[in-house]
Amino acid sequence: MSIFKETLSEYIAFTEEHLKKYSFCSGAVSAQENLIKAMNYSLEAGGKRIRPVLVYAFCKACGGDYRIASAPACGIEMIHTFSLIHDDLPSMDNDDFRRGKPSCHKAFDEATAILAGDALSVLPFEIIADDNTLTSEQKVKIISRLARAVGRDGMIGGQVIDMENETRNDVDEANLRNMYKHKTGELIAVSCMMGCICAGASDDMIDTAAEYGYRLGLAFQIIDDILDVTSTTEELGKPVGSDSEENKTTFVTLYGVEKAQEIAGQITGEAMNLLEKFGNDAFLRELTEMLLCRKN
Amino acid sequence: MSIFKETLSEYIAFTEEHLKKYSFCSGAVSAQENLIKAMNYSLEAGGKRIRPVLVYAFCKACGGDYRIASAPACGIEMIHTFSLIHDDLPSMDNDDFRRGKPSCHKAFDEATAILAGDALSVLPFEIIADDNTLTSEQKVKIISRLARAVGRDGMIGGQVIDMENETRNDVDEANLRNMYKHKTGELIAVSCMMGCICAGASDDMIDTAAEYGYRLGLAFQIIDDILDVTSTTEELGKPVGSDSEENKTTFVTLYGVEKAQEIAGQITGEAMNLLEKFGNDAFLRELTEMLLCRKN
Repeated sequence: MSIFKETLSEYIAFTEEHLKKYSFCSGAVSAQENLIKAMNYSLEAGGKRIRPVLVYAFCKACGGDYRIASAPACGIEMIHTFSLIHDDLPSMDNDDFRRGKPSCHKAFDEATAILAGDALSVLPFEIIADDNTLTSEQKVKIISRLARAVGRDGMIGGQVIDMENETRNDVDEANLRNMYKHKTGELIAVSCMMGCICAGASDDMIDTAAEYGYRLGLAFQIIDDILDVTSTTEELGKPVGSDSEENKTTFVTLYGVEKAQEIAGQITGEAMNLLEKFGNDAFLRELTEMLLCRKN
Repeated sequence: MSIFKETLSEYIAFTEEHLKKYSFCSGAVSAQENLIKAMNYSLEAGGKRIRPVLVYAFCKACGGDYRIASAPACGIEMIHTFSLIHDDLPSMDNDDFRRGKPSCHKAFDEATAILAGDALSVLPFEIIADDNTLTSEQKVKIISRLARAVGRDGMIGGQVIDMENETRNDVDEANLRNMYKHKTGELIAVSCMMGCICAGASDDMIDTAAEYGYRLGLAFQIIDDILDVTSTTEELGKPVGSDSEENKTTFVTLYGVEKAQEIAGQITGEAMNLLEKFGNDAFLRELTEMLLCRKN
């Protein structure tokens, strides 16, 4: 196994272990049992754990011990999971499946799914505030950045732009970039920022990490657009062609596959260049490449 | 006007002013406009602002300047508003009206209401973290307590117990007390605690404030049960008799109106006694009495 793959596995295993620690309830069987089951069902549904990996990788690239970043790393995965649960709801994207498994409101019910998402939206703030290695100043900085990245001016704002775009036929590149920046970029950017904050990095480093994150998030989303037309349902773990079925404007509908790939490549190049400030960290470079070449 | 009423008005006006400051977006008209409208629609729908008033009152009773507590005070009102928006959703309580106005998902749509609630659930953590008068230690303590009070072991857990109880016909007093403690008590208790933390009070004072809050929350909820059968729709601002229509177990169905009033009175007495530790603060005593004698 390459050093990259070993490190990646280590980060993912560390995430899984701590997600369990933070999210499982040690208490006796209670009436909240069903809520906790729903939260864990969605948390355990897997995914690539890209956001925690970015937290750890930036912490390490700034000279920190990545293990001090477990609370924000698991916190961002909880936020991501909360957004997927609510996104899948009948009144939102109405998706019955997520990563090949019934989505939360199908495995449980709609009310439980709403509440499981709600609980996952606040738990990160509790575990970050209760962490016993970070300083109060670090926690406050992390919480401020995280809450803003999630809220009306962040991911949730992006979901609203996405919904509004579905009613429009004049969505252009600027709109699409803005929507992706909010819907995907903010959580990716704050993951990178939180890793830097855990390592005690300077504001300048934190800002550069955010710039990298926005680019990675945008490239990631454009690749999603491409995979929706070039991948197979089996590879992707979800139906392909759903964008065109829903008449969504994407980088592919605007520019075609080839040009979209070119744009994604260019943005990834910009992200790579920003890694200079982090000594061209080998793990981050390889991770960036991996995310660009992914098949799902 | 009595000193009590003057102070109460001052607290409420201060809350309204700061809710505007924290929640209104100064940015240009954006695609998130609709989200912000929905958030403000529900925030402005009024209510008694009891939770912010408790934050201020406990801050003052502990010798603090209440104005330093504006971020947690407005934060708790946002959390309360988020819970009402999600509670009213079709898959939850399915209420089309709230305080005589169409509920958020009726005035807007279901997806917007879910997202407006989501945004209101994280904004408090942002405004508390960004506050520029509280120390980092105070902010971390407040955020830890607040997130726990909201989450799976707090208010959201209480909503799950409430939902589960609707499918049961063996709900007893212990269950009902536990449900009310979570669903209502936790937010009330944390309001009192946050006021103490803002004033730099001891852990012992904070704990006593929480004990007061749990009792006030429980008495408050029992009085809700009573008003549901003794009030008029006009006085209450919502249909009376909805509990019995929904076959809900309440303190009134368990014990009748008179006994329920007695229990509420007894719990209020316990709450009053706990105020000794706060020098029998006149404002808090009068507030406690007011909440027990309310008609809506």
